[in-house]
Amino acid sequence: MRNTFGQNLTLTLFGESHGPAVGAVLDGLSPGIPVSEEEIASRLARRRPDGAAGTARREADRFQIVSGVFSGRTTGTPLCILIPNEDVSSSDYESWRGLARPGHADYSAFCKYHGFEDYRGGGHFSGRLTAALVAAGGILIPALSARGIRIGSHILRCAGIQDRSFSDPGADFDALEEAPFPVLDPSAAERIRAAVEAAGAAGDSVGGVSETAVTGVPAGIGEPWFDTLEGVLAHALFSIPAVKSVSFGDASSMTDAKGSEWNDLFRAEEGSVVTETNHNGGINGGISNGMPLRFSCIVKPTPSVAIPQKTVDFRDGSEAVLQIRGRHDPSVLPRAIPVLNSVTALVLADFLIGRFGTDYLRFDSI
Amino acid sequence: MRNTFGQNLTLTLFGESHGPAVGAVLDGLSPGIPVSEEEIASRLARRRPDGAAGTARREADRFQIVSGVFSGRTTGTPLCILIPNEDVSSSDYESWRGLARPGHADYSAFCKYHGFEDYRGGGHFSGRLTAALVAAGGILIPALSARGIRIGSHILRCAGIQDRSFSDPGADFDALEEAPFPVLDPSAAERIRAAVEAAGAAGDSVGGVSETAVTGVPAGIGEPWFDTLEGVLAHALFSIPAVKSVSFGDASSMTDAKGSEWNDLFRAEEGSVVTETNHNGGINGGISNGMPLRFSCIVKPTPSVAIPQKTVDFRDGSEAVLQIRGRHDPSVLPRAIPVLNSVTALVLADFLIGRFGTDYLRFDSI
Amino acid sequence: MRNTFGQNLTLTLFGESHGPAVGAVLDGLSPGIPVSEEEIASRLARRRPDGAAGTARREADRFQIVSGVFSGRTTGTPLCILIPNEDVSSSDYESWRGLARPGHADYSAFCKYHGFEDYRGGGHFSGRLTAALVAAGGILIPALSARGIRIGSHILRCAGIQDRSFSDPGADFDALEEAPFPVLDPSAAERIRAAVEAAGAAGDSVGGVSETAVTGVPAGIGEPWFDTLEGVLAHALFSIPAVKSVSFGDASSMTDAKGSEWNDLFRAEEGSVVTETNHNGGINGGISNGMPLRFSCIVKPTPSVAIPQKTVDFRDGSEAVLQIRGRHDPSVLPRAIPVLNSVTALVLADFLIGRFGTDYLRFDSI
Amino acid sequence: MRNTFGQNLTLTLFGESHGPAVGAVLDGLSPGIPVSEEEIASRLARRRPDGAAGTARREADRFQIVSGVFSGRTTGTPLCILIPNEDVSSSDYESWRGLARPGHADYSAFCKYHGFEDYRGGGHFSGRLTAALVAAGGILIPALSARGIRIGSHILRCAGIQDRSFSDPGADFDALEEAPFPVLDPSAAERIRAAVEAAGAAGDSVGGVSETAVTGVPAGIGEPWFDTLEGVLAHALFSIPAVKSVSFGDASSMTDAKGSEWNDLFRAEEGSVVTETNHNGGINGGISNGMPLRFSCIVKPTPSVAIPQKTVDFRDGSEAVLQIRGRHDPSVLPRAIPVLNSVTALVLADFLIGRFGTDYLRFDSI
Repeated sequence: MRNTFGQNLTLTLFGESHGPAVGAVLDGLSPGIPVSEEEIASRLARRRPDGAAGTARREADRFQIVSGVFSGRTTGTPLCILIPNEDVSSSDYESWRGLARPGHADYSAFCKYHGFEDYRGGGHFSGRLTAALVAAGGILIPALSARGIRIGSHILRCAGIQDRSFSDPGADFDALEEAPFPVLDPSAAERIRAAVEAAGAAGDSVGGVSETAVTGVPAGIGEPWFDTLEGVLAHALFSIPAVKSVSFGDASSMTDAKGSEWNDLFRAEEGSVVTETNHNGGINGGISNGMPLRFSCIVKPTPSVAIPQKTVDFRDGSEAVLQIRGRHDPSVLPRAIPVLNSVTALVLADFLIGRFGTDYLRFDSI
Repeated sequence: MRNTFGQNLTLTLFGESHGPAVGAVLDGLSPGIPVSEEEIASRLARRRPDGAAGTARREADRFQIVSGVFSGRTTGTPLCILIPNEDVSSSDYESWRGLARPGHADYSAFCKYHGFEDYRGGGHFSGRLTAALVAAGGILIPALSARGIRIGSHILRCAGIQDRSFSDPGADFDALEEAPFPVLDPSAAERIRAAVEAAGAAGDSVGGVSETAVTGVPAGIGEPWFDTLEGVLAHALFSIPAVKSVSFGDASSMTDAKGSEWNDLFRAEEGSVVTETNHNGGINGGISNGMPLRFSCIVKPTPSVAIPQKTVDFRDGSEAVLQIRGRHDPSVLPRAIPVLNSVTALVLADFLIGRFGTDYLRFDSI
Repeated sequence: MRNTFGQNLTLTLFGESHGPAVGAVLDGLSPGIPVSEEEIASRLARRRPDGAAGTARREADRFQIVSGVFSGRTTGTPLCILIPNEDVSSSDYESWRGLARPGHADYSAFCKYHGFEDYRGGGHFSGRLTAALVAAGGILIPALSARGIRIGSHILRCAGIQDRSFSDPGADFDALEEAPFPVLDPSAAERIRAAVEAAGAAGDSVGGVSETAVTGVPAGIGEPWFDTLEGVLAHALFSIPAVKSVSFGDASSMTDAKGSEWNDLFRAEEGSVVTETNHNGGINGGISNGMPLRFSCIVKPTPSVAIPQKTVDFRDGSEAVLQIRGRHDPSVLPRAIPVLNSVTALVLADFLIGRFGTDYLRFDSI
Repeated sequence: MRNTFGQNLTLTLFGESHGPAVGAVLDGLSPGIPVSEEEIASRLARRRPDGAAGTARREADRFQIVSGVFSGRTTGTPLCILIPNEDVSSSDYESWRGLARPGHADYSAFCKYHGFEDYRGGGHFSGRLTAALVAAGGILIPALSARGIRIGSHILRCAGIQDRSFSDPGADFDALEEAPFPVLDPSAAERIRAAVEAAGAAGDSVGGVSETAVTGVPAGIGEPWFDTLEGVLAHALFSIPAVKSVSFGDASSMTDAKGSEWNDLFRAEEGSVVTETNHNGGINGGISNGMPLRFSCIVKPTPSVAIPQKTVDFRDGSEAVLQIRGRHDPSVLPRAIPVLNSVTALVLADFLIGRFGTDYLRFDSI
């Protein structure tokens, strides 16, 4: 069991919130993928807190590509990217040492690592590590795009406010790339922003739901058992901090459906086979059917709330009251959006390189 | 990408619905696990159609352990179990050849395997292969139980009718073992049975939700990233035919929750650390916290419905109307319950053997 | 750690010498590979004892393909092949129970499996399991051959008698396919046969060296670190019972060489790059360079000798004298030759499917 | 196929000779292993060129532990170690671009990576990456030692001069730790040093043989098929640049042996089972038998020789004469010794953590 994802294309995450750096090693990349530092930087910027709805901790997110890129292209050998940590103050965390923050991994990590874990700022569990995932996405997403595969994610629901679903993914992806806040319906965007801010002002946090779509995935990707497209996507998606549910297609809204409603009827269209509806989210029997992939994730409310909470010191079992100081994201959803896109890109790139070989993302082979 | 699950304990599924047999190879089992053929047979029997709510196809489910068991105990070398297919008539399926059954894998499999796939009765995609999973569970579930780990699953909702959630898992597990139909509330059981029958009589099918709980899992199992307990469980669970959503704890019912509601407060109880609530389903940061695991799966309505459906012949793109004859389960939920238990056992055994070594399930070491 | 080989194409071995069957599951095969039962049977026949130089135990080697083949072609889903055991008498072995046969795995297996292992006839360690490897080769070798990749092995040295090395691999492969005994030089063949017989008559056994060559492997296969072509080939080759050394190119005969002698100079020939010599065995930096692969394995003398040997009963530490009755191969080399070819095919098919995608061995794509 | 080694404990190598740094990520380490920067530095120093017998390129081998260590102990989360490159001049290499250095990976890498590879100084193929392996050994070797497992390697033969084999491994290991040159027999040491120097002075290079022994490995480690102890060790050892042969026990010197000579007879000694001889190198049937592991590697002569060599420019097929300037190790053997120890430690730690669980190397559990 490992902190590595993937079979043909693998990504290994490392780092702790208050250590020198976080980072990732990508192995199995096609050689010849163009690597744009601007693209990586721009995606890292989207993961930054955006003021009101985010955290006040300022992250410059400088990064360094240590290996695997030469003359602006991937070499095909392992690519290591480092994102140094800056502006870290460990003092707050010291006073909490041994206190199990509710909803956090402090206690379960203690049971696994016997107290040797770096407890400062969540250590290896910190959402900070998603920066390395986003950086990897800055390489993979454009490479998939050159192959005609586009990925987009938005907040589908937050604090009880609903965004509309993807209707025309291509146009919706374009709109999301320009949007200051990752919500499709501008009026919902305003209300969600306000609700998140209000929760933060009250020292509380809110949960919600994300939606992701992918267009251009060729039919025939996935395995019938175990390495189903749903299973492997979910495997990776549950790594995103706070994700507690993954649903494909219209699963979450159709628990009471009948087969005659849920079945997506096939028909021919311009020489190819399509479905009339897409309740199954582009996947039949674990394998892509050529329709857009569509899935949603339920994200729990950020466990860091300013409201005092009862807890225990797991080192001696004594009771305690914990008040988490500092500012934290009242919802992780806005910052999770670029992470969702990156994780989705990673899973698809792994499947596609496995299916079509290691040159699949090579630029001059496209 | 593979039809194999697991890292330390692996299970490889093989077989086609209308071939000589389906089966599985389990590798990495502890030596010395008692293997009871009665236990395996009893679990296979629970997977059988139970008359009205099931399919009329009669499955004797004889099985043969080909390797890996000696003198009634696992040897620790790969265990192959074969379940011969019987009573298979391929004639129906021949007439559908090339027609994409809506909601089924016929078309996506054609795209992957280029027409070389065995199309009869769903071939390798058939729910028939879950018999091999259930047989594996017949070895793993008692072995985990000897370690104090118990697993139970029930229908939480079907055809719009709700069962109660687990309240006292131990007693609920006992009740489910005796129950003729896997529902906790007897009156809900009657109504669900009736609704499933009615759907079948109308040539239609119904979806629903399962709930699974596991008690006795030690704290500290799982990885922070990628091989999170949620991620690996979901990876495996999405292999169960018709599962389209996996949710942990109270995720599916609490999308609008606040952090102050969702956080599970820690307290000391008789020298150990417990949580007051268990909204997180026994997992924090991807790692078990010692509370019962709890997750639910949304199961789509069986795609095989008797109602005629428009489709295409994917070999030439011509339009067609498909009427699926024969009797099929109007809901896969009742038969999915023992599969859920087996898949859960497989995932946990893999994690535990990785964590504690290959002798973890050895009988005389317990 | 597993009894499975491969990453993209995997083979899992199962079975015990005195159980119902041995077999293998191959997962990740390209769909559409023609499967000839005659070809498999013919390769299994080459693994049979050939009278004087072999064992008297008669093996009919019937086999059954349980899954993964439909209408004479691979489907692309897991292929399970079963080889039932016949003519097994467990009585001899019972009398040896607990006695550590020198050079055999009885004692090390006892330490690993705690006495739960099937001790009859070597159990899971039996050379009998190589029949399943050879059967897999009966599918893979012709498929690679259709891609222009040919594999041949012979006895390079046995009982102190030397065969010549491959000189013209294509012609040598043709000759070996016709040869009654896998030696290139007919006079060496006669002398090796006689020496093996003589060793058997004396109740003793002899070791030796095999040589394998592969032509047609495209340049660029292998990884710089860890999954080097040498490393992965050696990993698999050491599974062949009695192999204790693997050498590439001229390694074993050139330990005292100088760089100026060992370096293979590159030159252009008909538009492609070749080397003048091939001391490196077709591999530079872990990656194929387009020249024939060439490696040799040292095979220890069969540990089963009729001469009485001192040993201990590992159950209680008592001393004992063991006399292994029955007839055993005085050299495993003749029967190891088809196994070497199969294991080599397995490794190369795994690399090539990883490099070029899952359709690489699909017949109609060739 | 990957640049990662291991199943339970994994090591991923990254970096290029002339990039910013080389490094490794270790995942799956037990928490609580003491990490001594002095120990790592001391092992890195042993890998440095030692003047006459080494290269003139000066390597300071500073290093930084980026993650996975907290308060001087491993945390159990991924440990990334970086070794910055210094003193690199790319100008020499530029003039060779496109010229296939004989015996090197330039041409095979070009076939794999299509010219996108970093060609400077061997790029990702450079022996420089072994520094990261040695650094990992600086953590693993002391941790295994605390478990009673000791590893030692020496030059067994070089330039035709033979060292003695291990006779009393414990004392021999102690002697090697103090020795300025890794040879057991002091007079052989002098002659080997002189022969290596002479080869270098002549612009040539020499090959040889290493020998490694490991004491204290518990019996029962390894798998019967594929993940045999021999197979996995060989898999990793072939990553060490220039290794072209791996032999266990007395394989290389006993190709003509008889079973009655090669078999290691078992006997009881102070309540445990031992063998009288150890021709099998501590491994029977792929599994450790409790005797010392013993294996040897043939290392080809360094391919970088100053003597002008004919070659081709693989970009256009034109002929060229290449003269490799700069100073290079006339034998890689002296510097390969600490690498051999590290790779051996990595393989054993992976097996042992798999066998006994993730806490196996935890310091306070010892």
